[in-house]
Amino acid sequence: MTISTPHTISTDLYPTRKGPVCTVVDRPDPVVWSGLTDGSLHAAELARYEDKGFHVLPSVLSSGEVAACYSEIGRLATSPDLAADPRVIREQGTGDVRSIFDVHLLSPMVAEVARRPNVLGVAQQILGSDVYIHQSRLNFKPGFTGGPFYWHSDFETWHAEDGMPRPRAMSMSIALTPNYEVNGSLMIIAGSHQRFVSCAGETPADYFQRSLVEHIPVTGSPDHATLTELANEFGIEQITGPAGSATVFDSNCMHGSNGNITPYPRSNIFLVFNSVENTLAQPFSAPAPRPEFLAKHDFTPLRST
Amino acid sequence: MTISTPHTISTDLYPTRKGPVCTVVDRPDPVVWSGLTDGSLHAAELARYEDKGFHVLPSVLSSGEVAACYSEIGRLATSPDLAADPRVIREQGTGDVRSIFDVHLLSPMVAEVARRPNVLGVAQQILGSDVYIHQSRLNFKPGFTGGPFYWHSDFETWHAEDGMPRPRAMSMSIALTPNYEVNGSLMIIAGSHQRFVSCAGETPADYFQRSLVEHIPVTGSPDHATLTELANEFGIEQITGPAGSATVFDSNCMHGSNGNITPYPRSNIFLVFNSVENTLAQPFSAPAPRPEFLAKHDFTPLRST
Repeated sequence: MTISTPHTISTDLYPTRKGPVCTVVDRPDPVVWSGLTDGSLHAAELARYEDKGFHVLPSVLSSGEVAACYSEIGRLATSPDLAADPRVIREQGTGDVRSIFDVHLLSPMVAEVARRPNVLGVAQQILGSDVYIHQSRLNFKPGFTGGPFYWHSDFETWHAEDGMPRPRAMSMSIALTPNYEVNGSLMIIAGSHQRFVSCAGETPADYFQRSLVEHIPVTGSPDHATLTELANEFGIEQITGPAGSATVFDSNCMHGSNGNITPYPRSNIFLVFNSVENTLAQPFSAPAPRPEFLAKHDFTPLRST
Repeated sequence: MTISTPHTISTDLYPTRKGPVCTVVDRPDPVVWSGLTDGSLHAAELARYEDKGFHVLPSVLSSGEVAACYSEIGRLATSPDLAADPRVIREQGTGDVRSIFDVHLLSPMVAEVARRPNVLGVAQQILGSDVYIHQSRLNFKPGFTGGPFYWHSDFETWHAEDGMPRPRAMSMSIALTPNYEVNGSLMIIAGSHQRFVSCAGETPADYFQRSLVEHIPVTGSPDHATLTELANEFGIEQITGPAGSATVFDSNCMHGSNGNITPYPRSNIFLVFNSVENTLAQPFSAPAPRPEFLAKHDFTPLRST
């Protein structure tokens, strides 16, 4: 399947951050871009992904691989070479590491995982083309003091701030710690990916520097009435599972997570795959593109190992 | 069963907030103070309460009664007579009502509910004596912006700040809205009531004025290492259930709740019953007693309707 990609703002199919009002429209684009059922996912799994906007893979990493990834994280988080690197995001106040971006470039282990058939192959199958990595990161959500991530659609941000034309992208979150009901696990409004929420407000200059560390967004999130309507229509599903499990979800899923006062931290590897037929244009609603570590312009297709 | 009640600090069985170190001791007192099995709870339910520290009552209020309570709340929250009342606690910033204390005195409906056999009778059965209401309140945890309540034992506070000698008290939280997994429902470290955590620090003067509105406690909470040990030993249980259900829990349960970014608010009626054989002395670790609306000195036994 070949789909032409708009590369100019004149063909903006997903206008957002253009004014004072939050509106909801039906998504004009597909969710599953390939009819291929000879990949990792069965037809029923693809159909469910199309309906719900996410799919859970029970075991992407073995317990040994989880442990190895964890020690790799520790190495990166404490590496003197990365101490002042802008790709390492720290908590306000404590200075603890909250995220490390470009982890598929910084960690050979993550680079290898991203190319596996049950990772890369799933992305290619859903997106119906070759894919590249738009963004990758390690997230650390500490116990006791973990803050919330407020509701948002990743695609809304990537479209407005990075110039991603269409929601022909998907994320995979690979759990390195157990996701319990009580430790701030991912919540998805299952089905919300079929709508596009055009958010109110405008994108401030260099907004990414705030949005990476602040818990309450200035823009890029629906208003309360819209979130209530979406939650009432679709319901909220919380994704739980053991370390090593993974959640694949559509780039336009409305999702968020509560804070975490339990002793149990949450860490995951987050990989964003974008179709090579959906490469970045200029930002659709921001003064300037975000840095490369947030939105890559190397569109070279990822190849399996 | 008659148990003598210590009324002087020289017999402090639960020292806390006396120094820099957090320590854990076994609880010297019973949990179930009566062997009576002719009350509302069956023997198996009492045994489970003794073991876990809590018990869920599936339906204390009908849906009609929930609706009536809700309109009563609205009346109290907007009453001009209570606008400047110290018993009405408001959120920092928004000024929204967060709690209303003394609700068993302010609301005839709540006063009636507190005297029902499946409420008062359960308290009498567990505490093995006549009981009175030590504190009552309505809690409102809004959607979208609900903050967390950090881990604490109510008894630790009531002992230190109110002079309650022993944990011969229990709380009933009656849900007026559904408690979901995702909207900041009560979490209990089930079994933690069998230990007493002596907390580090000292109680600042007029600390209640801060502790009612701040999310991160200055004192009265275990340190991270102690919480981790308790959670690893006992596990964390989250209490979910429909509006109208209720949770009875021991005054010394370690409990807390996460924040809530979902659209679904949480409201509950919170009633604290204390044994008339456990009436208040002077505070065991605070400069002065808290106000009457937080710790009543009217020890008149509550009688059923």
